[in-house]
Amino acid sequence: MGRVLVNGIPVEQVSVMDRGLAYGDGLFESIRFVGAVAPLWSRHMQRLAEGCRRLQIPLPDASQLWAEALEVSRHLAHSVVRITVTRGQGERGYALPSRPQPSRVLAAFAPPALVDENLDRGLDLRICDLRLAEQPQLAGIKHLNRLEQVLARAEWCDPAIAEGILRDTRGLVISATMANLFARIDGELLTPAVDRCGVAGVARAELLAICPQARIGEMTLEALLRASEIFLSSSVRGILPVRSVGERTFQPGPSTRELQQHWRNLGFSREQAG
Amino acid sequence: MGRVLVNGIPVEQVSVMDRGLAYGDGLFESIRFVGAVAPLWSRHMQRLAEGCRRLQIPLPDASQLWAEALEVSRHLAHSVVRITVTRGQGERGYALPSRPQPSRVLAAFAPPALVDENLDRGLDLRICDLRLAEQPQLAGIKHLNRLEQVLARAEWCDPAIAEGILRDTRGLVISATMANLFARIDGELLTPAVDRCGVAGVARAELLAICPQARIGEMTLEALLRASEIFLSSSVRGILPVRSVGERTFQPGPSTRELQQHWRNLGFSREQAG
Repeated sequence: MGRVLVNGIPVEQVSVMDRGLAYGDGLFESIRFVGAVAPLWSRHMQRLAEGCRRLQIPLPDASQLWAEALEVSRHLAHSVVRITVTRGQGERGYALPSRPQPSRVLAAFAPPALVDENLDRGLDLRICDLRLAEQPQLAGIKHLNRLEQVLARAEWCDPAIAEGILRDTRGLVISATMANLFARIDGELLTPAVDRCGVAGVARAELLAICPQARIGEMTLEALLRASEIFLSSSVRGILPVRSVGERTFQPGPSTRELQQHWRNLGFSREQAG
Repeated sequence: MGRVLVNGIPVEQVSVMDRGLAYGDGLFESIRFVGAVAPLWSRHMQRLAEGCRRLQIPLPDASQLWAEALEVSRHLAHSVVRITVTRGQGERGYALPSRPQPSRVLAAFAPPALVDENLDRGLDLRICDLRLAEQPQLAGIKHLNRLEQVLARAEWCDPAIAEGILRDTRGLVISATMANLFARIDGELLTPAVDRCGVAGVARAELLAICPQARIGEMTLEALLRASEIFLSSSVRGILPVRSVGERTFQPGPSTRELQQHWRNLGFSREQAG
């Protein structure tokens, strides 16, 4: 871990009374920096604002977050800055504090190591048993209640398996455990809706903005398994081709390569990938 | 807040790297103490052990928790001791740490003030709009992912409304926001199942153990509204009669009074209620 600022102060602890710890009552963003540049900063701030609105948490000042993000990451040529915003300290009980004073925690990390072979040939995925619960009031935002992802990721420890596919209670494909998912099915580029469960990824939003032909919709597992190409999107890890889902194998396709090029053009060059 | 111990040390902070903060990756128990006596201690430890098993968190030593609970509460004649157990510190990412070192936080609080009138005449309840999502892998245990309860409790701020009724996505009654619910319907004492959502309360477990005639089953809102009596159970607040649910009014009934007496017999006398 690099530097940490808690409410602007260089400490590495939060109060045990913070509702982030007590109830997971908050939000986070993991933002890829290349030096002092964060190509997707404004999309992260947009999602954070939507999360604060939905959870009724006062929105921190974006320019203050930016200054603090630069401060914690300035000794790293490449970094991931995690911004955690909680409802702040509270007494016992779920009721909202009458005068909330949100906490903000900024911490810089070295980016995850990306193996060239994974970016070229693709990742091996499994299908997780855990089914995401349907909670429209929490779907899409990046809140701190992440036990479903923790349990899904705990389903395997084989390091050859890079990711797991998450389905909802109806069996529809939603995403991977820490990335969104796109697939070309019957000629159409499709990504699952995240309005009942799942996270509306910042990289997903970027891809949807530059691919007007991509469609948001329902994706069955059967449809996924007959896709002509599959890739994952992650604001931290970029565009990751999928080589296999369980027994079924895939080849990286033209959309994958085109969007990987777009990713590099944004400023996330391969050399910068950790 | 009274005293705090974090991993046995008298500090009031946890690391920002704690997975309890990062993902709500942990569990808690709120335990009512009368001096150095906690009548439901063993039931709390039983639920904590079940939660640790389900989340694959190493179980803390119960005798150490007991010693620390006495330590944080010893200056209070009456207290609620919150025990929080998290998976401990971790690097970025959902994958379980290879050598988890769970964190434990013990903090003592004054018990909530209970108004005599509420214990006598009963509480006024509303029906919450939020629907609990169905996640069998997290149902029943007292984990730290509590945004649903926070959002449900945020639906009202009228201090005359003491609690809200939570339903699942199918519309079935599950519980209140911070207590379990029992109702006598068609002569039968019924409490909703908590195997798809909701929390298996320690007070609920106590009541089920001493009321062999009580049944766990599905409860529609329509059935609840024609109950002859309704009460809430909370290990911290005891047995609370319900006086109204929205427009519909109720009288505390014989089961409510009998179980309030049982509660006092356990050692939670009314005078001790904060």
